[in-house]
Amino acid sequence: MNPMDNSVTIFGDWGTSRLRLYLRQGKSVLDRRDGPGVGSLGGASPRETFLDLVGDWREARPSLALLCGMVGSRNGWAEAAYAPCPAGAADIRARLLHLDADGLPVAIVPGLSCRNALGGPDVMRGEETQILGALELDPALKQGRRLLALPGTHTKWVVVEDGTITSFLTAPVGELYALLREHSILAKAAPGDGPESPEGFARGVARVVEQGPARLPHLIFETRSRQLLDGLPKDEAMGFLSGLLIGGDVAATSSWFGDLGQVSLIGAPALSALYAQAIAACGGSSAAVDGDAAVLAGLTALSSDQNSGVHVLA
Amino acid sequence: MNPMDNSVTIFGDWGTSRLRLYLRQGKSVLDRRDGPGVGSLGGASPRETFLDLVGDWREARPSLALLCGMVGSRNGWAEAAYAPCPAGAADIRARLLHLDADGLPVAIVPGLSCRNALGGPDVMRGEETQILGALELDPALKQGRRLLALPGTHTKWVVVEDGTITSFLTAPVGELYALLREHSILAKAAPGDGPESPEGFARGVARVVEQGPARLPHLIFETRSRQLLDGLPKDEAMGFLSGLLIGGDVAATSSWFGDLGQVSLIGAPALSALYAQAIAACGGSSAAVDGDAAVLAGLTALSSDQNSGVHVLA
Repeated sequence: MNPMDNSVTIFGDWGTSRLRLYLRQGKSVLDRRDGPGVGSLGGASPRETFLDLVGDWREARPSLALLCGMVGSRNGWAEAAYAPCPAGAADIRARLLHLDADGLPVAIVPGLSCRNALGGPDVMRGEETQILGALELDPALKQGRRLLALPGTHTKWVVVEDGTITSFLTAPVGELYALLREHSILAKAAPGDGPESPEGFARGVARVVEQGPARLPHLIFETRSRQLLDGLPKDEAMGFLSGLLIGGDVAATSSWFGDLGQVSLIGAPALSALYAQAIAACGGSSAAVDGDAAVLAGLTALSSDQNSGVHVLA
Repeated sequence: MNPMDNSVTIFGDWGTSRLRLYLRQGKSVLDRRDGPGVGSLGGASPRETFLDLVGDWREARPSLALLCGMVGSRNGWAEAAYAPCPAGAADIRARLLHLDADGLPVAIVPGLSCRNALGGPDVMRGEETQILGALELDPALKQGRRLLALPGTHTKWVVVEDGTITSFLTAPVGELYALLREHSILAKAAPGDGPESPEGFARGVARVVEQGPARLPHLIFETRSRQLLDGLPKDEAMGFLSGLLIGGDVAATSSWFGDLGQVSLIGAPALSALYAQAIAACGGSSAAVDGDAAVLAGLTALSSDQNSGVHVLA
């Protein structure tokens, strides 16, 4: 998109649990609408859901709707094949999946695949757009070798070299925490249901950094034994568990990346703050990038040439 | 119990999910009855459940019912306080909790607590009896420093020195596997519901041994990415996940214990065989001890002096 361009576009961040649509003119957001994630459409198709929500925005004659996230997975609207790393904005733009929705051109951003730092296969979908956005918001990140982290259900650690995403590694930290908190015997020993205590979190980080991330499964059991033996309250126990998992992830990452240096943390502020604390405990520093701002900046970067990509009928 | 003793006793292995009662005379088992675990009594008290199941065994005039397992937890019949390590058979016997059930003397075996190899608190309940039993079944284990493992929901790694349990370390491997298999996104990517494939298991063990247990959380995500990218079938993916978790546990254990040497594996044969494979991949060897036989041998060892322990009214 030319910065002087005043055309109307729709941007969408469509994940498993949430759809967030923006009506844009040039660089301004005119309106915003929220809808269901692709995992909770209740029988409606993604296309129907999308057109219903867009509704009267059509009157502004948008030239394109650009969507990122799980909408491009095989359980979404249409599968946008993973682009292999190394990949920069131009590579991702070249693999946009183009559809037509009742006369409105739609483009879906592909996810990325790579061979990760451990030599294994890895995938992301949605985060690639936030990464490109973070590079636009802070162009200094396009110089040299940089480490970015996108904390979440499946935390992504991303290596960017001279503006190109060269590899990434996924740690299912948020999912492990939720499983242990909701379903495990470990979390059941003590009553209470408060938020995680910051003191417990700090202790968990310190414990796993001191012992090393190889001991994580054994340390996790301390969540239970400290409840049984020391009467640890639930909020402290859950903070401790969260600290073990996040601290273990950061400590393990520093073992393959080398010195963490300054990590760019992209995501929701509360979770990023926990990662920032663990990164500091491992000798690194961090700078936060708001996740929603990064999505918008990434979609802007990807919408600059609408003729790239793969055109299909749908 | 004097080996020449021909008195009648009741032995019980009463865990969270299962009660197994034995009527014994001398060293012979006359009868066996199964009942519900302390976690599934459906409103009945442990005492009522026990007396109902014992029923006409009372006619044989048992001199004692000796029970081990979660029956001695705070959610069981009565709490038998943890005996601290180091602990041998005499220490555990001295802390038996004595009750009276309608005229029948009942003794509950205490669990053990320790400061584990990572300097943290740790607990077990039920396994102490199997460990004592394994030492009786193979008296060579009472000499020198020995490593025993009791694989399960919460796998216990136990150090025995000259016949005394000096410390142990818990790894919630079985629980993590069940949580990931039943509830996680990681397991949902591929259809199918077969048993874990042996090939997948071997690959998971090899992968975590090669990369080191510090990478376990990151390797776990490969279960999903290999399904998405390589079309890995579910039975292989679940085998791979199981191999990562068990292999990671064994590799982490060898990092604190030192050379594994010959590990005594106490438990169910199928799970012990998986641990044996992972131990071999880490350069150790193993010998299997049947879990049920170990419980009986352990209760026999603990019933040798009925006058020890703590007497309470209940």
